[in-house]
Amino acid sequence: MSAALTLAEAKSVIAAVQAHGRAERMEPLSVLVLDAGGHPLAFERGDGTPPGHFTIAQAKAHGCLMIHAGGTAIEERAAAGDPFMQAAPTLFGGRFVACRGGMLILRDGTVVGALGVTGDTSENDLAAGLAGLDACGFGAEG
Amino acid sequence: MSAALTLAEAKSVIAAVQAHGRAERMEPLSVLVLDAGGHPLAFERGDGTPPGHFTIAQAKAHGCLMIHAGGTAIEERAAAGDPFMQAAPTLFGGRFVACRGGMLILRDGTVVGALGVTGDTSENDLAAGLAGLDACGFGAEG
Amino acid sequence: MSAALTLAEAKSVIAAVQAHGRAERMEPLSVLVLDAGGHPLAFERGDGTPPGHFTIAQAKAHGCLMIHAGGTAIEERAAAGDPFMQAAPTLFGGRFVACRGGMLILRDGTVVGALGVTGDTSENDLAAGLAGLDACGFGAEG
Amino acid sequence: MSAALTLAEAKSVIAAVQAHGRAERMEPLSVLVLDAGGHPLAFERGDGTPPGHFTIAQAKAHGCLMIHAGGTAIEERAAAGDPFMQAAPTLFGGRFVACRGGMLILRDGTVVGALGVTGDTSENDLAAGLAGLDACGFGAEG
Repeated sequence: MSAALTLAEAKSVIAAVQAHGRAERMEPLSVLVLDAGGHPLAFERGDGTPPGHFTIAQAKAHGCLMIHAGGTAIEERAAAGDPFMQAAPTLFGGRFVACRGGMLILRDGTVVGALGVTGDTSENDLAAGLAGLDACGFGAEG
Repeated sequence: MSAALTLAEAKSVIAAVQAHGRAERMEPLSVLVLDAGGHPLAFERGDGTPPGHFTIAQAKAHGCLMIHAGGTAIEERAAAGDPFMQAAPTLFGGRFVACRGGMLILRDGTVVGALGVTGDTSENDLAAGLAGLDACGFGAEG
Repeated sequence: MSAALTLAEAKSVIAAVQAHGRAERMEPLSVLVLDAGGHPLAFERGDGTPPGHFTIAQAKAHGCLMIHAGGTAIEERAAAGDPFMQAAPTLFGGRFVACRGGMLILRDGTVVGALGVTGDTSENDLAAGLAGLDACGFGAEG
Repeated sequence: MSAALTLAEAKSVIAAVQAHGRAERMEPLSVLVLDAGGHPLAFERGDGTPPGHFTIAQAKAHGCLMIHAGGTAIEERAAAGDPFMQAAPTLFGGRFVACRGGMLILRDGTVVGALGVTGDTSENDLAAGLAGLDACGFGAEG
């Protein structure tokens, strides 16, 4: 099996996501890394962002982890009217949201955690997250 | 009245569901049996499945039990826009989801419990559950 | 790092706990195995036991896992008036209880999950759990 | 009024807390900084620490912030049997715990956030937190 994410790895992912956001002149981003069980490893909220950003980043990342799917697939299933996706935010106690910006973190093909990014458009949140994971050598399902 | 489900019966149902899933080369399944009051009797989560599978299997089975209906009927009512089905996940504290894979367990026509199966497509989850209940001599409403 | 618990391992632990309980003529036991992230892997509830046994077994196991401590230590700290232990059931959303019968599952000294046993006295719940883990070759902190 | 905490400041506080913990050979620490409204700004969880550390650090910090008091005063009031302190974890939805390691972050005498530290003894958690805030030029009520 793959080794668990370390704090150093989680922080390097967050730094790489933020670097991508700045390079692309995105809005300030908030970024959360969860371990494979859905528990927070590291988080930072962009300056001047709304107080709800932790909750949103958590819902994005935690939702992906609970069903082992990327935020894009979740968003598409919800848009297609999948009734599971309507119920999922309630099922998971508010820690699920059907929109891009949540993604799985893969090491050697195994899910070792999840990443939640929020602050710009969902497309840009996703792009920053994927860029950060790639820069740190992780696979992703976004 | 019909005799309550025993633990041995619950486990034999789970084993039969898993056997069907393996025979049909389905994805690893997670299977939950609830008693007639909606409380867990036995559960197992397939290897490598996401952490949210207990929650999903519970929502499928518990929802069926709360209104004594099969998951197919629930899903169809939700798809038809039934407002009750929109509210039900919240009404039941997250233990309700309008999709196939939840089913009633019947003995002599009486509801003695509910079964929740998740892991493959909803159609396959349902098929595995029905096959398992039939193999163990139970009636079902799925 | 240590490999994650498999479903086969979780089921063998439950079977060993139940065998010990029967050999010692204990009351019917309910037994839950959680993975390292606190999510259910396998459960069975003893015949004739109250409907709340899943919730109790979950609170025992999940509480141990959240703070990486055995149920005995948790119970002793609570008995000594530790204010954290008073608050912990609320902090962890009802998935924490300060009494014996919850224990950590260790492989090569690493926490790979948690076990919750309930049904007899807390002392016996603990004894059955420890016996089952030992019989299956796991370390424990109970 | 005092300027709001920036993300850079929050991260420098966490780094200083961690540096103190390492210098004093403490157990790995988990450290959370909340803004003046009680919402997460930055967090990191020490390697190998239990999954519940975010929840505990949040309860420590959030509790202090909600009543503008340090964790030591809160713990002492709870130990003296103050009924408010018994109710507070429930009042604040699980984001309150009466033990040291939560502290207010002050700038020019004004509360600009809160810090939660957990991982070693409560005394050491508090000491690391106070050392980190002092190293970064903040006042504290711990």
